[in-house]
Amino acid sequence: MTAPRTRAGRPRDADATVKVLNATLELLDDRGVAALRIDDIARVSGVAKTTIYRRWTSLTALVVAAMESALGPRAIPETGDVEADLLALTRLVHQSISRTPFIRALPLISVELMQHPGLAQQYRARIIDPVREQAIRLVRAGMKQGRFRPDTDPSLVVDAVISPVIYRRVILHEDLSLPDLLAVGEMILRSIRT
Amino acid sequence: MTAPRTRAGRPRDADATVKVLNATLELLDDRGVAALRIDDIARVSGVAKTTIYRRWTSLTALVVAAMESALGPRAIPETGDVEADLLALTRLVHQSISRTPFIRALPLISVELMQHPGLAQQYRARIIDPVREQAIRLVRAGMKQGRFRPDTDPSLVVDAVISPVIYRRVILHEDLSLPDLLAVGEMILRSIRT
Repeated sequence: MTAPRTRAGRPRDADATVKVLNATLELLDDRGVAALRIDDIARVSGVAKTTIYRRWTSLTALVVAAMESALGPRAIPETGDVEADLLALTRLVHQSISRTPFIRALPLISVELMQHPGLAQQYRARIIDPVREQAIRLVRAGMKQGRFRPDTDPSLVVDAVISPVIYRRVILHEDLSLPDLLAVGEMILRSIRT
Repeated sequence: MTAPRTRAGRPRDADATVKVLNATLELLDDRGVAALRIDDIARVSGVAKTTIYRRWTSLTALVVAAMESALGPRAIPETGDVEADLLALTRLVHQSISRTPFIRALPLISVELMQHPGLAQQYRARIIDPVREQAIRLVRAGMKQGRFRPDTDPSLVVDAVISPVIYRRVILHEDLSLPDLLAVGEMILRSIRT
């Protein structure tokens, strides 16, 4: 009797999956998206090309999966206290960005990804939107509860909190500390509270 | 008697300057920083390499000068009303970013520039800091006047206002409209007013 196939395949496949994702991240970090080749991923990971193609339908799917694995899970269980939930989500995003060894390369990879239409769409749908949409829903819930001003633009609020992390890294080549990110969040909250 | 030499040189040189800067921007837009070659700039602009080297000491200096010319002047005369001045500066930055024909390429160029240490330093010193430092000074003046809370972090405030423009373009591939940018500015001002 064999173990049931999971999404990541059998145990041996799960091991190969980690190797391939890590090799992909290493190569992305080294050379960027444009120079990424399946042959190099196979060589660096020690996993056969046929195995890689069986697990991921395209290089695009593999790149997005590698980014997802680098960032880790980025969703929080909601408690009903929208401010506490928004704070928890902000902390989680900061943690997921700063704990990856690819923190310095991530913005460049993101910018490069956005130049490839197929990748941009999947990156947006799988890396950005899940977290961004949860945050936007929380702001909307706060407006319905009368905690936030009715003239609040939920997506603008969410983007205003997260964007200094990107700006500091991409443009200023500095990291935004967690206290500074929370200070931005507090500024924005202070301005939208009723 | 000859006309006095200006910073851009004689009229014939001024013409060549514009041609070289435009060719540089065109090539940056087309191929990015890494693939930029003086030979191509000479070919596209129709200006001799020796003339280009006489005017700019390095490719780095030329790239930064091209970015400066694309963005145009970005400083405002200060009136003493810090909120009005900050608003004017915000409008000017938005205008200078959106009027360039290279708006879509600028973030990628910026990110690429930041990968080249020499360029990064000049880009920061000549493109980013003049505007950012003026804005930071204005926030500090507002704090001294007692208009802004004493616990305000001036650079964080300035970065929080401008960063959604970068985030929307680089990560979301959308433009932040002037009304949306002003709404972010108003949110931040509302939260730091005493």
